[in-house]
Amino acid sequence: MLKNHLFTPGPTPVPPRTLLAMASPIIHHRSPEFSQILAEVKEGLKYVFQTNNDVLLFASTGTGAMEGAVANALSPGEKALVVRGGKFGERWAEICKAYGIETINLDIEWGRCVKVEKILEYLIKYNDIKAVFIQAHETSTGVKFPLKEIGEALKDRDVILVVDAISALGAIELLVDDWHLDIVVGASQKALMLPPGLSFVSISEKGWKWIERSKLPKYYFDFKKEADALKRNQPAYTSAVSLVIGLLENLRYIKKRGLKNIIEHHKRLSEATKSAIKAMGLNLFTKEGLSEAITVVEVPPGIDGKEIVRLLKEEYGIMIAGGQGRLKGKIFRISHMGYVDENDIIVVISALEAVLNKLGYHVKKGVGIKAAQDILFH
Amino acid sequence: MLKNHLFTPGPTPVPPRTLLAMASPIIHHRSPEFSQILAEVKEGLKYVFQTNNDVLLFASTGTGAMEGAVANALSPGEKALVVRGGKFGERWAEICKAYGIETINLDIEWGRCVKVEKILEYLIKYNDIKAVFIQAHETSTGVKFPLKEIGEALKDRDVILVVDAISALGAIELLVDDWHLDIVVGASQKALMLPPGLSFVSISEKGWKWIERSKLPKYYFDFKKEADALKRNQPAYTSAVSLVIGLLENLRYIKKRGLKNIIEHHKRLSEATKSAIKAMGLNLFTKEGLSEAITVVEVPPGIDGKEIVRLLKEEYGIMIAGGQGRLKGKIFRISHMGYVDENDIIVVISALEAVLNKLGYHVKKGVGIKAAQDILFH
Repeated sequence: MLKNHLFTPGPTPVPPRTLLAMASPIIHHRSPEFSQILAEVKEGLKYVFQTNNDVLLFASTGTGAMEGAVANALSPGEKALVVRGGKFGERWAEICKAYGIETINLDIEWGRCVKVEKILEYLIKYNDIKAVFIQAHETSTGVKFPLKEIGEALKDRDVILVVDAISALGAIELLVDDWHLDIVVGASQKALMLPPGLSFVSISEKGWKWIERSKLPKYYFDFKKEADALKRNQPAYTSAVSLVIGLLENLRYIKKRGLKNIIEHHKRLSEATKSAIKAMGLNLFTKEGLSEAITVVEVPPGIDGKEIVRLLKEEYGIMIAGGQGRLKGKIFRISHMGYVDENDIIVVISALEAVLNKLGYHVKKGVGIKAAQDILFH
Repeated sequence: MLKNHLFTPGPTPVPPRTLLAMASPIIHHRSPEFSQILAEVKEGLKYVFQTNNDVLLFASTGTGAMEGAVANALSPGEKALVVRGGKFGERWAEICKAYGIETINLDIEWGRCVKVEKILEYLIKYNDIKAVFIQAHETSTGVKFPLKEIGEALKDRDVILVVDAISALGAIELLVDDWHLDIVVGASQKALMLPPGLSFVSISEKGWKWIERSKLPKYYFDFKKEADALKRNQPAYTSAVSLVIGLLENLRYIKKRGLKNIIEHHKRLSEATKSAIKAMGLNLFTKEGLSEAITVVEVPPGIDGKEIVRLLKEEYGIMIAGGQGRLKGKIFRISHMGYVDENDIIVVISALEAVLNKLGYHVKKGVGIKAAQDILFH
């Protein structure tokens, strides 16, 4: 017997009652029942995004909505600044390139944070930049970017701030309206505790001005069409009905528990995990702006990081994530996003102690666990 | 107590065992388990499409894959012929327009079929047409188009045939390779008996030549990137894991039962429904090329079609579809796609008899039922 435990930064575990809600007989996306569901989902998403604007839903994973953000906000030949501090920063640049947007890349050492002054420097140097693309936190490095400060610095400029908050939404503090975030992309399979297949987009008043004059081609991810339909509690096209029903379940749960408490919970799990990692003598890969959604760890010298991931999966049923792109084999990533509790952290740290010992990196049994317990159970 | 019955042309009912399979704890899209699932799904989709080429999967509804077909096959300013015989023909034209493709529209009276000679006439008149866009059958009118003949006529010409087979796939005969269909789009929520949220695309060797030289922007629906990943049984981006697990379940079922038998089953249900409609003195809206996936009926004079749909839903728990676009209130549509059996047809005809009488259109009780029984139970 080997139970499966998911500690990957998306997909994340889905609560059993949500799985069962999604297993209800299918209803039609144009039925009054579904319209009612969408109305409640709309309010729930506004709460999670902390915005007064409607949040659009798409039947796609997060990358689709990221593409939508580019295609809806810009016009051919326009210029964008992309903060590239990891794999998902690179994705913004790739999408812009695919659409003929000239990208100025602000490259950050992976594991380090961006400085607001640096962004302003670029905006002054290239005064025709129409949009800044960034992550809320870089899932590939565990770095949280200073969105509040960036939003404040950009709000009165002729540029919009476009944020991939896919792995931040519902896990770390994200005040879309207060921080002046113009277009914010989310997805279902992270802290919203759903299977992959839904993405979300919030748009500020300023963001809509960009969208109004955008000339890039779009159809499926047409924000205007989707926003018009959503006003009538309808999807523009067929909706991923079963996932939306699961979303309703989870949004109700989030509202009941309170976003603040959920974010506090993520902080506690993150602190416990990071404390355990240090107690085991390991180094965090993330050097600045530590995200509370994920813990990113350097593989100790002489050990193959892929082996850590493989053994955890094969011998303990525990799936964590390795490094992506240039970080393959060099780091491993433990997600504590969404439907993860204190006991789950004990399980992953305990198995990690065992696997590291097996691979020749000596850890005194229980040393990581104790550090975690000190924070989780006191 | 009012049980729900779904007779809409997507979403369609999902088998309970599929719903439960999708309610299994979520697995990661980069796990060996999921890779194995994708490998089997790939083979199953080839069988349903009747093709030797890999069939791509996307986390989107059908419209997304339709957009992908346009964006991957053509270049800015190129010309396309669009057969517009209903709402979904119009959608092809809208997508082409959004991408700056010059469309020549071959408009067909809604409810009538296209003639192959007419298509050839247009191809001769505009000899720089690069692609013909069409439906396998128009879900808005119930007309099946002669794809076999069109494919034969186009195969040696410098033009590709792009087919929206979303509501045809697995319901009516569709031989992708034998009929020379170059790009064929399908979706999950029709005869594949799944919730909405997955779309599929098959591509012929000739189709790939068009894709190789296409210069329209694409990222999420990049066919080349997805095909490369699929060779390694991987998705290019995050996969809609739970829906793919349901798909595997249904593809196994389709294989076990045999595509031929399933298509025969659809024929029988279609014949019974159409026979019942006629026995009730109603007229079919579809005048030519009657599809076996759906029965489209003219609302009798003096009756509001929307009332038929409303009463069936509110008083009998039966959801059928009304008319779309210019046909709103003038027709109603009964789908017999996918997970629908003989008894379901009896239920919908029986309720329809009652509702029509209630609205003042006299039908002798049981007359429709008898006509259906004669075909279904003999």
